[in-house]
Amino acid sequence: VSGTEVLGGRVPDLNGPWLADRLLELGFELAHLTVCPDRPAEIGAQLRFLLADGVALVVTTGGLGPTDDDLTAEVVARVSDAPLETDAALEARIVAKLARFGRAGDAISESAAAAARKQARVPRGASVIEPVGTAPGFVIEPSAGSEPAIVVLPGPPAELQAMWPIAAGTVPVRRASAGAQALEIGVLRLFGVSESELTETLRIAAGTVDGLARLEVTTCQRRGELELAIRHGRSSAASVKGLRELIAERHGTSLFSLDGSSVDEQVAALLSGRRLAVAESCTGGLMAGRISERPGASGYLAGAIVAYADDAKTRLLGVAEELLASDGAVSAPVAAALADGALRRFGADTAIAITGIAGPGGGSATKPVGYVCWSAKLADGSALAHEALLPGGRAEIRDRATTVGMHLLRRLLDGQTGR
Amino acid sequence: VSGTEVLGGRVPDLNGPWLADRLLELGFELAHLTVCPDRPAEIGAQLRFLLADGVALVVTTGGLGPTDDDLTAEVVARVSDAPLETDAALEARIVAKLARFGRAGDAISESAAAAARKQARVPRGASVIEPVGTAPGFVIEPSAGSEPAIVVLPGPPAELQAMWPIAAGTVPVRRASAGAQALEIGVLRLFGVSESELTETLRIAAGTVDGLARLEVTTCQRRGELELAIRHGRSSAASVKGLRELIAERHGTSLFSLDGSSVDEQVAALLSGRRLAVAESCTGGLMAGRISERPGASGYLAGAIVAYADDAKTRLLGVAEELLASDGAVSAPVAAALADGALRRFGADTAIAITGIAGPGGGSATKPVGYVCWSAKLADGSALAHEALLPGGRAEIRDRATTVGMHLLRRLLDGQTGR
Repeated sequence: VSGTEVLGGRVPDLNGPWLADRLLELGFELAHLTVCPDRPAEIGAQLRFLLADGVALVVTTGGLGPTDDDLTAEVVARVSDAPLETDAALEARIVAKLARFGRAGDAISESAAAAARKQARVPRGASVIEPVGTAPGFVIEPSAGSEPAIVVLPGPPAELQAMWPIAAGTVPVRRASAGAQALEIGVLRLFGVSESELTETLRIAAGTVDGLARLEVTTCQRRGELELAIRHGRSSAASVKGLRELIAERHGTSLFSLDGSSVDEQVAALLSGRRLAVAESCTGGLMAGRISERPGASGYLAGAIVAYADDAKTRLLGVAEELLASDGAVSAPVAAALADGALRRFGADTAIAITGIAGPGGGSATKPVGYVCWSAKLADGSALAHEALLPGGRAEIRDRATTVGMHLLRRLLDGQTGR
Repeated sequence: VSGTEVLGGRVPDLNGPWLADRLLELGFELAHLTVCPDRPAEIGAQLRFLLADGVALVVTTGGLGPTDDDLTAEVVARVSDAPLETDAALEARIVAKLARFGRAGDAISESAAAAARKQARVPRGASVIEPVGTAPGFVIEPSAGSEPAIVVLPGPPAELQAMWPIAAGTVPVRRASAGAQALEIGVLRLFGVSESELTETLRIAAGTVDGLARLEVTTCQRRGELELAIRHGRSSAASVKGLRELIAERHGTSLFSLDGSSVDEQVAALLSGRRLAVAESCTGGLMAGRISERPGASGYLAGAIVAYADDAKTRLLGVAEELLASDGAVSAPVAAALADGALRRFGADTAIAITGIAGPGGGSATKPVGYVCWSAKLADGSALAHEALLPGGRAEIRDRATTVGMHLLRRLLDGQTGR
C-alpha cells in the first residue's frame, strides 16, 4: 500500500483489509502487509523485500495517478527489470475518457494530455487492466519460477475493487493460486454469549468434531455481538456441519444468524408491511439513524422522537410527570411509556424505546453509567422489555444500546415473546 | 504491527496511526509500516528487513501476551542476538498484579504463574518498560552505530499508549531522534472550499511565502470539510504566519477553524445557555445523534423529531399537507416549516431542520438523489436556509447533510445571518 497519508495515519487504509478478504477467499495465506510513503527509495525497498521473501503473489495499491508523486509503475518496472513503454492504444482510450469529462468538442488540455501520456506507460510484457478511472493497472508474469507474480492496482477503493476481478482472472494470478485450495467462508453470529463461553465451546469441539483442526475458525467481537468465521476447503464440509451443530446445541437462540446475515437485515425483513416508530433518549437519534441506514427504510419507518430532555418525554410522548418523578427517566416503566407514546403519536403498529445513562456524568449508585432500559411493543399488546448494564464509554454505550434494541425488535417480531 | 487478525483485516490497526503521530511529533520521518501474522518466520523477515534498511528506530506492537501465539519477544531476541533471560523481580511484580485480579489470599493459578514466567523473559541488556496490563515492554540499545534502536510494546492500545511516553524517554530513543527537529503541528479547517482551490492557494504560497518549502503541509478531506495540517520547526514560525494569512485572505469565512477545533466543538460552545430542537427526515436521526455525541449535550439539546414518513411531518411538526403537495417534502419551504415545528413542539429557541433525498431511490430530474434542503432558525425570527446537491452514496449523503447542518447552525449562532 503506497501513500504518505496512509502511512501517517491521516487516511485509513481501506484497500489492505478488502484485498485480504479476496486473497483469503482464493486460498492464499497472507504473509505481509506493508505501507510505504510516496518516495521511490521506500517503495523500492518494500518491493525488493517482498520479491525476495518467497511469496507467490505481490499486490500493490496506489501511486498510479498522473502527478509526480505517483511513482509505483516506475519503481515496479525497475525492480522487475521490465522498462516502461508507452501503450499508444491505451493512451488513446485514456484521452477519450478525459475528453468525456470536458465540454463536447473541446480538445483536452495540455495537462490532461500529459497525464494520459504518463498513465499509458506500463512495464514491457505486462498485461494491462483497463482503467475504471483514468489509471490502468497491470499484471507482471514471473520470469523465473521462483519469482512472484505482481499485480499493480490504483489506490481509489472503487477503482481497485472494480478492477480486482479482472486481475484475479489473469493467468499469472491463477497460476499463483493454483496450489492453494479455494476456501469457503461461513459466518455465524451470536448475541448474548461471551467470547470465553464460545472459546469453551471451541475447546470442546476440538475433542468431539472430527477434522476440526483443518478448519480456520476466528472469532471477533463487533458492536456487542460475536462473529464466528469458519474458513474451510470443500472436503471439510462434514467437520463444519459438526461444529455448527455443537454451537447450535450449546448456545440455542443466542445463535441468531446461520448465514452471516446481520441483525439489521433480519429486522428489515421482519418489518416488511409494518409501520415502526422509535422513541429514544440516551441514544439521541442513533437508533432511528441505524434503522434508516438501509435503502428502502421508508417502507416501514414512520419516524422517531428523540426525547432527550425530560419535559420532551412528557410533552411529546405523553410520559406522566409523576412516573418520571417516582421511577426516574431511566426505568423500565418509563421505557414502556415511551414505547406506548411512540405507537400512539405515529399511529404505528411497532415501537422500540430506549432510555439510559450514556455518561460520563449522570450515574448514581443504583443506576450507574451504562444502565439502559428497552421496551419493544406491538399494537396488539405483545411486548418485550429488557434492562442491562452496558460496558464502555459514552460512544460504545450508545452504539451497543442500538444493537440490543435491534435484537429486542427481532425477537418480538419473530414471535419470541416468551423469552 | 503483529497480529493475524490485523493482517486479515478483521481487526483495525489502531496502533500504527497512533504511533505515526507520536513519531512525527518527535521529528521522525516515517519509512515503513509493516503488518505480520503471528508466525515467527514472517515476524523475523519483517524485523530483518527493517533492521537492514538504515532506519534509526524500529517500534513493534503486539505479540507479548502469555499464549504460545505471542512470539515477538522471542523473535526480537533472536534477530538482535540478545538471548531471553528471566527478570525475577519483574516476574514477582507480574505475579503480584495477577493476584490482585483474583480473590484476596488465593495463590495464583498454575496457568497464571506460567504466564508471568513467560512475560518476565526479556532480551539480555534490554531496558524494561513496566507493564500497564501484564505484558512488559522493552527497549534494545543498538550495539553498533549503524543499527536502529528497537522499542517493543504490547498490542492493546490502552497499554501501548500508556507505555509509549516511558519508551520515548529512554536513552536509545532520545539518541535516535537527536538529529531530528521536534515539530509543531497546526491544523486549520475549511468548509465550502474545494481541494483544488486550496491547492491553487498553496501554489501561490510557494511563490510568495518565504521558507514555505520547509513546512510540511498536508490537506485531507473529511466529512465534507477540508483539513490542512502544517508541521513545522520552531524556526519556521514566520512562514507559518505568512501561509495562514494568505489562506485567511483568499478563503475568508470558509476558514472556520484556526486552532484545529471542530465544528461540533464550536457549535457546542455556541449552544451554551440555549435550547435546541432538531427536525430531520433523510438523515433519519443522525443529526440529533451527532449533536448528542458530546458529553453534556443534555445542557442544550431538548430533542428531535425524525419525521421520516410524510404524514409524520404533518402530524408531529404541523407541516401543512397543502405545502407538501405543492412544493414536495424535499423543498426549502418544507425545511423552514420543519424548523418552525421543531421550535414550537419542543419550546426551543434554536432549531435545525433537514429534508432531502438520500437515495438510492426517490430521485427525479429536478430533485435528484443528493438534493437536500436545510433551515436553521432562532425563536427571535432570524434564520438561515441552504440547499445543495451532495455527492456520494446514501451513507455519504446522510453524513454530509449533518456536516452542512452543523455549519448552518454555527453561522446562525455566530450572527452571520447576512451571508
